[in-house]
Amino acid sequence: MAINLEMVGKKLEPVTYEYTMRDVMLYALGVGCQPDELEFIYENGLKVLPTFGVIPPFPSLGRLIGVMDINIAMVVHGEQRLELYKPIPVAGKLTTVPQIKAVYDKIKGALIVLRTETFDEKNELVCANEFGTFVRGEGGFGGDRGPSGEKNTPPDRPPDIVFEDQTTPIQPYIYRLSGDYNPLHADPNFAKIAGFERPILHGLCTFGFVGRAILHKICGRDPDKFKMLEVRFRDPVYPGDKIITELWKEADTRYIVRAKTQKGNVVISNAACEIKL
Amino acid sequence: MAINLEMVGKKLEPVTYEYTMRDVMLYALGVGCQPDELEFIYENGLKVLPTFGVIPPFPSLGRLIGVMDINIAMVVHGEQRLELYKPIPVAGKLTTVPQIKAVYDKIKGALIVLRTETFDEKNELVCANEFGTFVRGEGGFGGDRGPSGEKNTPPDRPPDIVFEDQTTPIQPYIYRLSGDYNPLHADPNFAKIAGFERPILHGLCTFGFVGRAILHKICGRDPDKFKMLEVRFRDPVYPGDKIITELWKEADTRYIVRAKTQKGNVVISNAACEIKL
Repeated sequence: MAINLEMVGKKLEPVTYEYTMRDVMLYALGVGCQPDELEFIYENGLKVLPTFGVIPPFPSLGRLIGVMDINIAMVVHGEQRLELYKPIPVAGKLTTVPQIKAVYDKIKGALIVLRTETFDEKNELVCANEFGTFVRGEGGFGGDRGPSGEKNTPPDRPPDIVFEDQTTPIQPYIYRLSGDYNPLHADPNFAKIAGFERPILHGLCTFGFVGRAILHKICGRDPDKFKMLEVRFRDPVYPGDKIITELWKEADTRYIVRAKTQKGNVVISNAACEIKL
Repeated sequence: MAINLEMVGKKLEPVTYEYTMRDVMLYALGVGCQPDELEFIYENGLKVLPTFGVIPPFPSLGRLIGVMDINIAMVVHGEQRLELYKPIPVAGKLTTVPQIKAVYDKIKGALIVLRTETFDEKNELVCANEFGTFVRGEGGFGGDRGPSGEKNTPPDRPPDIVFEDQTTPIQPYIYRLSGDYNPLHADPNFAKIAGFERPILHGLCTFGFVGRAILHKICGRDPDKFKMLEVRFRDPVYPGDKIITELWKEADTRYIVRAKTQKGNVVISNAACEIKL
C-alpha cells in the first residue's frame, strides 16, 4: 500500500493557468467543434465551452500523483464532476486550489477524489471539479467504500434526446495539445503495452463531446446555462468512433446522461447534468 | 498609387518567433497530418515538417502591409518560395530578417516580393522565403514587369507521381492557430464580402499539404531531404476538398509540381521542388 491516507483533506499547492483565445479555440476543436459552431472556434465573438473548465485544474493531477506516491501506469480516470459558477473568461490567468477530498477503498483499487476550485483574477470562483482517479491494485486497505456506484441510472424508457457526433482519427492529437500529453492517447506502442489495440481518446475529450451535446440540445447553445456535469468513465472511445449522447429529463433543470459509441458499448454511465433555465 | 516604391531593397525590422513542440505539432495537424505520420504530431521523437519554415517569418507580412501603405482587402497571396538550409529545430527562438526584394508592375496589380531569411539561436540560416503578395488595383505604374509567368510548366505527359489527400471542414480553423488569423479563412460573412461562397483554405495550408506529398513520395519521409518548394497560388481550396498533388521528374533532385482538387481545378501551378538525394 503506497497511498498515503494522511493526505486526505489536505490542500495541494495552487496551480496557475495562463491562456489566450488560441487555447480556448484549440480546446473546442479538440472536443469536436465544427464550422457551424463558429462562436467557439473564432476569436471574433468568442465563447468558451463550459467543459473547458476541466483544463485549468488539470495539472493538479500531476501534483496528486506526486504527493500520493502512485504508480502512474496503474492510474485510470474513473469519474469527473464539473460545476460552473460564472462564465469562463476567453483569456487570462486562473488559479486552482486542489484538495484531496477522499480516498475510497474499492477493493480492486483505490478511488482518489481530488476536488479543485478555480478562481479568476478577481479571486471569484469560476468552476469546481472533482477528478476521480482510480488506482488499480491499491484497494483492500479497510477504508471507507464511498458512495454507492448506482447513482444517475437512466429510467426504463428510451432517451428523450439523442445527439450523435463523429470523432476523427486525429481527435486525441488535437485534444492533447490542451495539456494532457499522456502517451496512451498518441503512441500505438504505449497503448498496446497498456492493453489497448491502439491509442484511445482521452476520457475528458469524450466528456467535452458530451458537454457539447448538452449545450446544443438543452442549453440553446448558451454556455451560461450549463451548471454541472458529472460522469463515470466506462469503455474507451477509439478515435474515429461515433459518440452518441442520450439524455433523459428528470426535471426542467436536470437530466440523466449516458453516452455510447456506434458499436453500442457504453462509454459514459451514471452521469447527470444540471442546467439553468 | 499608394505603394511606396522607395522601399524596394530596404530591410524591415527583424521578427522573432518563439515556439515549443506544441506549435510544431499543431502546425502539422493544420496541414493534414494523420496518425500514421506520428513523428510529426507526437513529441516523443518529434520531427518538424519542412513547410513549417513559412511560419516564423509570417508576421513580416503584417509589417510589409504597414510600411507599404496597402489596403489589406486588396491583397492576395500570389506566390511562395521556401528554401531550407538546415533542419528546423523542434522548439526555440528564430529571428527573421525581411527585405523588400522587388515590386513588379503586373498592370492589373502590383506583385510585391518580400524575401525573408530566418536564423536560429546560433545565428545560422535555417530557411529563406519569398512571399509574393499581389495587390489588386495597384498596377500600371510603369514599373518592371518582372520574370515571365510561365516557368515550371509540366511536360506533356501524365504525372509520374500522384498523391491524394483529404482536407476537412475544420482544416482552416486548425491551420489559423499557427498564426494567420485572416477572417477570410474562418468567417462566412467576411468570405462572402470578399467574393467567396464560404471561407477558403489558406494558400499556405495548401502549400503544407503539397509539402507533405513531396516529403512522403520523394523524400522518403525525411525532412532533411527537402530543399526547396516554389509555387503560384491559383484557385482557392475549400475546406473538405481533396488536394491532389502531381509530380513530374525533371532530374533526380528536381520535380515540376501541380495541385488540383477533386473538381479538377488547378489550385497550385507553375511550381517546382528540389530535394537532396
